[in-house]
Amino acid sequence: MNVTFADIESAAARLQGQANRTPVFTSRSADELVGARLFFKCENFQRVGAFKFRGAFNALSQFSPAQRRAGVLTWSSGNHAQAIALAGRLLDIPRTIVMPQDAPAVKLTATRAYGAEVVLYDKHATTRETLGRELAAQRGMTIIPPYDHPHIVAGQGTAAMELIEEVESLDALVAPLGGGGLLSGCAVATRHLLPQAKVYGAEPALADDGARSFRSGRIETVSNPQTVADGARTPSLGELTFALIRQHVTDVVTVTEESILRAMLFLWERMKLVVEPTGALGLAALMQGALKLPGQRVGIVVSGGNVDLAAMKNWV
Amino acid sequence: MNVTFADIESAAARLQGQANRTPVFTSRSADELVGARLFFKCENFQRVGAFKFRGAFNALSQFSPAQRRAGVLTWSSGNHAQAIALAGRLLDIPRTIVMPQDAPAVKLTATRAYGAEVVLYDKHATTRETLGRELAAQRGMTIIPPYDHPHIVAGQGTAAMELIEEVESLDALVAPLGGGGLLSGCAVATRHLLPQAKVYGAEPALADDGARSFRSGRIETVSNPQTVADGARTPSLGELTFALIRQHVTDVVTVTEESILRAMLFLWERMKLVVEPTGALGLAALMQGALKLPGQRVGIVVSGGNVDLAAMKNWV
Repeated sequence: MNVTFADIESAAARLQGQANRTPVFTSRSADELVGARLFFKCENFQRVGAFKFRGAFNALSQFSPAQRRAGVLTWSSGNHAQAIALAGRLLDIPRTIVMPQDAPAVKLTATRAYGAEVVLYDKHATTRETLGRELAAQRGMTIIPPYDHPHIVAGQGTAAMELIEEVESLDALVAPLGGGGLLSGCAVATRHLLPQAKVYGAEPALADDGARSFRSGRIETVSNPQTVADGARTPSLGELTFALIRQHVTDVVTVTEESILRAMLFLWERMKLVVEPTGALGLAALMQGALKLPGQRVGIVVSGGNVDLAAMKNWV
Repeated sequence: MNVTFADIESAAARLQGQANRTPVFTSRSADELVGARLFFKCENFQRVGAFKFRGAFNALSQFSPAQRRAGVLTWSSGNHAQAIALAGRLLDIPRTIVMPQDAPAVKLTATRAYGAEVVLYDKHATTRETLGRELAAQRGMTIIPPYDHPHIVAGQGTAAMELIEEVESLDALVAPLGGGGLLSGCAVATRHLLPQAKVYGAEPALADDGARSFRSGRIETVSNPQTVADGARTPSLGELTFALIRQHVTDVVTVTEESILRAMLFLWERMKLVVEPTGALGLAALMQGALKLPGQRVGIVVSGGNVDLAAMKNWV
């Protein structure tokens, strides 16, 4: 199981006319703040409000006729759920999503609005994989997990491919790290297009399984971490994403909860971008100094913008 | 005193490389919601977070050497203040801004951060014009008012000019209406480039002086209206903006406070755009049905994104 740049190119062809080619934003004040030239790939403007649509559509569009009829099942704390829900609707594929009871309300509502069946589970009673595999077996559905799948990884890599096509040269690229689908796909794309560029993952210190795995050389885990960056609450990297990250990623850095919120508020207040906490991880790494890239041209993947506005009062 | 399309073209040349050429956003869900094809000109991404930078820079860049040395004075409830503060800094012109004591904190802070002197006044004790004219006379400063000035109007008109250059054809354009600088400038540009297109102003019902003026044929006033759209709290249209609006605008419609907040939250939640209440007036007019433009191609000027995030808790 591997993902190559050719897979990302194929994914880009499938996504043509389906995914948004999201804009790249720059900000004089952000550049001054961190002392680098930043290029923000704004996946908050992607369909369903997050990069996840790329991988989901890429995976579902490769289903056989029989798979399409039987449907897709997945589990997700949020954006992947919406992505599968919408991609399945566009491709007329039935879809069942296993979601935690405490997922953000905005994400539950959006997933149902896209016409998916949502099955809630209690994190403390079972795992989403266990429940998901049982249901999929009963129903004959194909499982498309949120990150550890080559078609998902290839789809997510198109975000970095588009960014590099637009800005042409980069010294480094920083992506949020949860399960590793985005980071590994973007790393494959960047390594191919800009072999000299560094690729960094940015992860909450409260959910640092990725950074620990990167250092120890085996997949480390974390259990229900209480980070505000809900997209990075994944229990561990996957086998595929871990292998790709070890091969292609320069380093994985961690950031504090305060840094995540500061970076998110900067993106809201100064750049007028509605970004979810996970989407601010890359900028947080630079603002906190966990990554120091003075004078460099740095691509930052802003992964999504699905946030409960009601939660803002706790963050401001 | 008049503003022609040639003035807007000259303003565009002065703004080249200084103002952002802001992006035009589209949204499948917004189009479905109102039954039209919408093109959002996102001036929330303009420098200082609002279209006001256009007019301010256009005005200050035409100062004589003596005017530049003596400086500029203005009054503003917010975005024009920041615009003059930044434009003056870029052009090395001293600047004094008269602001109400109850202006949003984010706007006071930003204005001072751009290096302007801020003089606060009490709305209930004096008018900003009275205090401003006294100070300007004492200091020999040139007054650049927030809207009733041909260089301001011409600068604001470049927003519509850029929008039309990008989307090529429009059946209608909708702009927020406060003092009328944005609406009148955009109306001049639209009438010239697309003579068949309709131009609408959208105003809060709580601050409906513009709509009443449009109907009565004389400048009507409103006193400290309590609309959430703080950019539309201006006491009346100006002589120049009123004349241009009567000449070029198709109609002025009003919207409820609830509609403004609904439209703003749609822009935040669905389109991931940080927009201030005034910036949502155009979409509010369509969502509320105050404007019905079924099947048409409609440009909507999103005027700005400077909002106190702390206020969100009152709005969600």
